[in-house]
Amino acid sequence: MEPVIPVQTEIDILRSLEIMTEPSEPDDSFHVFDTTLRDGAQREGINLTVADKLAIARHLDDFGVGFIEGGWPGANPRDTEFFARAQREIDFKHAQLVAFGATRRAGGKASEDPQVKALLDSGAPVVTLVAKSHDRHVELALRTTLDENLEMVRDTVAHLRSQGRRVFVDCEHFFDGYRANPEYAKAVVRAASEAGADVVILCDTNGGMLPAQVQAVVSTVLADTGARLGIHAQDDTGCAVANTLAAVDAGATHVQCTANGYGERVGNANLFPVVAALELKYGKKVLPDGALREMTRISHAIAEVVNLTPSTHQPYVGVSAFAHKAGLHASAIKVDPDLYQHIDPEQVGNTMRMLVSDMAGRASIELKGRELGVDLGDDRELVGRVVGRVKERELQGYTFEAADASFELLLRAEAEGRARTYFEVESWRAIVEDRPDGSHANEATVKIFAKGERIVATAEGNGPVNALDRALKVALEKIYPPLAQLELVDYKVRILEGKHGTQSTTRVLISTSDGKGEWSTVGVADNVIAASWEALADAYTYGLLRAGVEPAE
Amino acid sequence: MEPVIPVQTEIDILRSLEIMTEPSEPDDSFHVFDTTLRDGAQREGINLTVADKLAIARHLDDFGVGFIEGGWPGANPRDTEFFARAQREIDFKHAQLVAFGATRRAGGKASEDPQVKALLDSGAPVVTLVAKSHDRHVELALRTTLDENLEMVRDTVAHLRSQGRRVFVDCEHFFDGYRANPEYAKAVVRAASEAGADVVILCDTNGGMLPAQVQAVVSTVLADTGARLGIHAQDDTGCAVANTLAAVDAGATHVQCTANGYGERVGNANLFPVVAALELKYGKKVLPDGALREMTRISHAIAEVVNLTPSTHQPYVGVSAFAHKAGLHASAIKVDPDLYQHIDPEQVGNTMRMLVSDMAGRASIELKGRELGVDLGDDRELVGRVVGRVKERELQGYTFEAADASFELLLRAEAEGRARTYFEVESWRAIVEDRPDGSHANEATVKIFAKGERIVATAEGNGPVNALDRALKVALEKIYPPLAQLELVDYKVRILEGKHGTQSTTRVLISTSDGKGEWSTVGVADNVIAASWEALADAYTYGLLRAGVEPAE
Repeated sequence: MEPVIPVQTEIDILRSLEIMTEPSEPDDSFHVFDTTLRDGAQREGINLTVADKLAIARHLDDFGVGFIEGGWPGANPRDTEFFARAQREIDFKHAQLVAFGATRRAGGKASEDPQVKALLDSGAPVVTLVAKSHDRHVELALRTTLDENLEMVRDTVAHLRSQGRRVFVDCEHFFDGYRANPEYAKAVVRAASEAGADVVILCDTNGGMLPAQVQAVVSTVLADTGARLGIHAQDDTGCAVANTLAAVDAGATHVQCTANGYGERVGNANLFPVVAALELKYGKKVLPDGALREMTRISHAIAEVVNLTPSTHQPYVGVSAFAHKAGLHASAIKVDPDLYQHIDPEQVGNTMRMLVSDMAGRASIELKGRELGVDLGDDRELVGRVVGRVKERELQGYTFEAADASFELLLRAEAEGRARTYFEVESWRAIVEDRPDGSHANEATVKIFAKGERIVATAEGNGPVNALDRALKVALEKIYPPLAQLELVDYKVRILEGKHGTQSTTRVLISTSDGKGEWSTVGVADNVIAASWEALADAYTYGLLRAGVEPAE
Repeated sequence: MEPVIPVQTEIDILRSLEIMTEPSEPDDSFHVFDTTLRDGAQREGINLTVADKLAIARHLDDFGVGFIEGGWPGANPRDTEFFARAQREIDFKHAQLVAFGATRRAGGKASEDPQVKALLDSGAPVVTLVAKSHDRHVELALRTTLDENLEMVRDTVAHLRSQGRRVFVDCEHFFDGYRANPEYAKAVVRAASEAGADVVILCDTNGGMLPAQVQAVVSTVLADTGARLGIHAQDDTGCAVANTLAAVDAGATHVQCTANGYGERVGNANLFPVVAALELKYGKKVLPDGALREMTRISHAIAEVVNLTPSTHQPYVGVSAFAHKAGLHASAIKVDPDLYQHIDPEQVGNTMRMLVSDMAGRASIELKGRELGVDLGDDRELVGRVVGRVKERELQGYTFEAADASFELLLRAEAEGRARTYFEVESWRAIVEDRPDGSHANEATVKIFAKGERIVATAEGNGPVNALDRALKVALEKIYPPLAQLELVDYKVRILEGKHGTQSTTRVLISTSDGKGEWSTVGVADNVIAASWEALADAYTYGLLRAGVEPAE
């Protein structure tokens, strides 16, 4: 369980087995650089909106990465908008925003290059420039000379530096380039470093490297150039995490990763096992205090934003990562969990599970209650009831990780002995009709009781859920005026048990805003409309609770 | 693209970059040992029948692994039956069957131990014995003395050898044990080796090691004991493949892996990237001729048997492993695919795929057309029209990278000058009703024209999309009998522009099967029902195209 550092010799091995002293605070001497929003977005099946990017940037900043590469401003309107809004809307606590772009065009001047200007216009304090370092790529893809490529690196770095930007340079295809022409590859590193780049990142763009190769090349380039080096590894050999650590062993002090390893083809080096290894195995402080304990939650939250199922078997953060199946293990674990776990799962915000039981442990419920301001005190019986309810609902397909408001309603219902009920539903109906002219009619009717009144309301919308939302609001807002402020701001659908097509269970997550804050609710049903209705009803109930309205009798 | 070996020094690096000469045939000097049927079965969610185990054993033997660990005969009736049937029913071409079991009980005799007898009774020519090598585990879990544990190893190995079995010994928790008490850990290795074990396997049972640590420990143990060593790595740090290769670098000549990395908690070292690295990067022949080209097929086939969706992002064998998204890459790939791929995907039986997205240009459309068998020839104007249509539709929210069938319909419509039309839609309607008793009614009606007939059909379903699917099938299948085979197998919903709540655009992806193959279609609309309808209509149209049905006039 003790943190250890990687080793090369017998003496080192023994030293590595000693407990490390308290690690120091993270500072500029080591960079955790995240590129989920740029390289991660290259993953097949990921298609991020600006709102998605802002949500992910908030999670990454909470986690405490030092740098967030947001995209390529100027290359597409979405990335340009992201940089504008991120600086306006996010109050970054830890991270600096990084714009990604290319060196200037061959034969031009950096100061006159519109693509370079867009990087400056983004307002990002840091720019990562991608530069070719493989001679064949310079000639075949860039179609310029090797010398002009060096000049493009120097000119662009110097120009951005003169405009007050910090510059990192990504050497694309570095390892393949080094194999083909090591002197030229190193010349690119020197050109970048001498022109003022703070870090030169060696990229295994095609992902074909193995750790021993990465370590050897990084060591040599470090010795030969003296530049500060970083590593950017792709996972095509299944070794991206190990390649990243091998580069650190060789002296790299900047690691580029993506949340959950998202990225082109197989993916990039996964941020979570990389920082966990650095903190827990190397004893190297790379995140703010307490951040690692949020890792599991943040990993899952980002998966929800990109609308991919969190990998159950991801190292450290997967729900199976500390799940023990063998019955033999169980009793030994009761004696001493360290016998069967390489770390304490609480260190990364995960929990040990004995299979057949499930995920929600008492400790996490207690912690969550505290976080929500609902005091569960030492009422073990109450905590047990909540755990039971969560397990029962998660079995049905609910998830509370991304639906804090629904969880709080569940928690309060158990703590207060009854659910908050502001209205009761008699029935509802939604109709979607495609007309011969191609237009759609969407109409919903709700029948509810509130404060002793029976109310029937009908509304139209641009879809059945929108129509239901409007009908519910029409029905309730005269009785509960605060509901007029409520607005649905996000809506996500996930089909569970994918092998049943449209007969699957459907989970809907809704985010609602009252202009002062946002909250998320969940609904699960056999169809998308019924699941949406349940999440809507929770969203309205929570909105009234937040507004301090007393429940009706 | 050339195979290279891992390296430590500058001279080695350069040597590693040379093309290797023809590798030699696999022989006993290096073992590929598979434990999917034993350790892989510990994965959460896997529950193998004897028939499953037999099917997997056949696939592994086809692939050409040297050893297949089939389970623990005697420990449960399923494993006992597997050994009996495997020897009767499978004509192994390459692999030897291995029985797994434990050293004899403390204080007894191996020749009288019923568990040891069951290993012999299994008839397997090879036995892997698990032995404790961590002093605390001997005392706490085994509850015997350190000396008696050594005696248990010696006695059991010697007894099995005297009965003509080949013996391998798995040292459980070896790396943690080495950290705690290196002399004792090495004493277990010596005891096993001196008693006649052919290979002693160092197991990272808790999976907490990193490659540099594994390499250092394996080197030292090899030098100090002279035993033939193997490696068994778990993936808890995300480094199991790298740890396995690090052990090989240090002199291990036996690797234990599982297909697709299945195993307890996060999983085991994944067989496929390990053998691919050995063959393609080290130039080490570890499989029969031609086996590597079957790797993608075998990986997916085993996933089908264990009933898990094949990981799309698995190194080498995932469907995304050679999928290219960026438009910039596509033009370079047309010039030379090696520029953007670390190996030729055909070497592992996979294929390069171009993802059609708004980042795509002409080059990717041409490559994609070729992949789908639609010849765009040198018709630059046609390619330009298709690129224009893709960009226009992606702006509206369509995505074609996950909807090959919709893309092919679009491509054919442009190439053939008109869309394939098997039916025309007059109108449709879906109603979802929540009744006072909490149940839901879902009903859909479709009105269509096909082959000159006007057809009106109504169906119920467990949700509005299911009801529409059924109504469309009822309406069409008399006219087009092949539609009876169609089944929706996956359904995904994504809400675009998340900051507009239920007023957002909705994208639906549907996968459909006709029992022989699957295809995916996309629909985009202002609401989920209308988007689903569009994807359904494309799915039916493509199903008829696949079935070779001629469009109606």
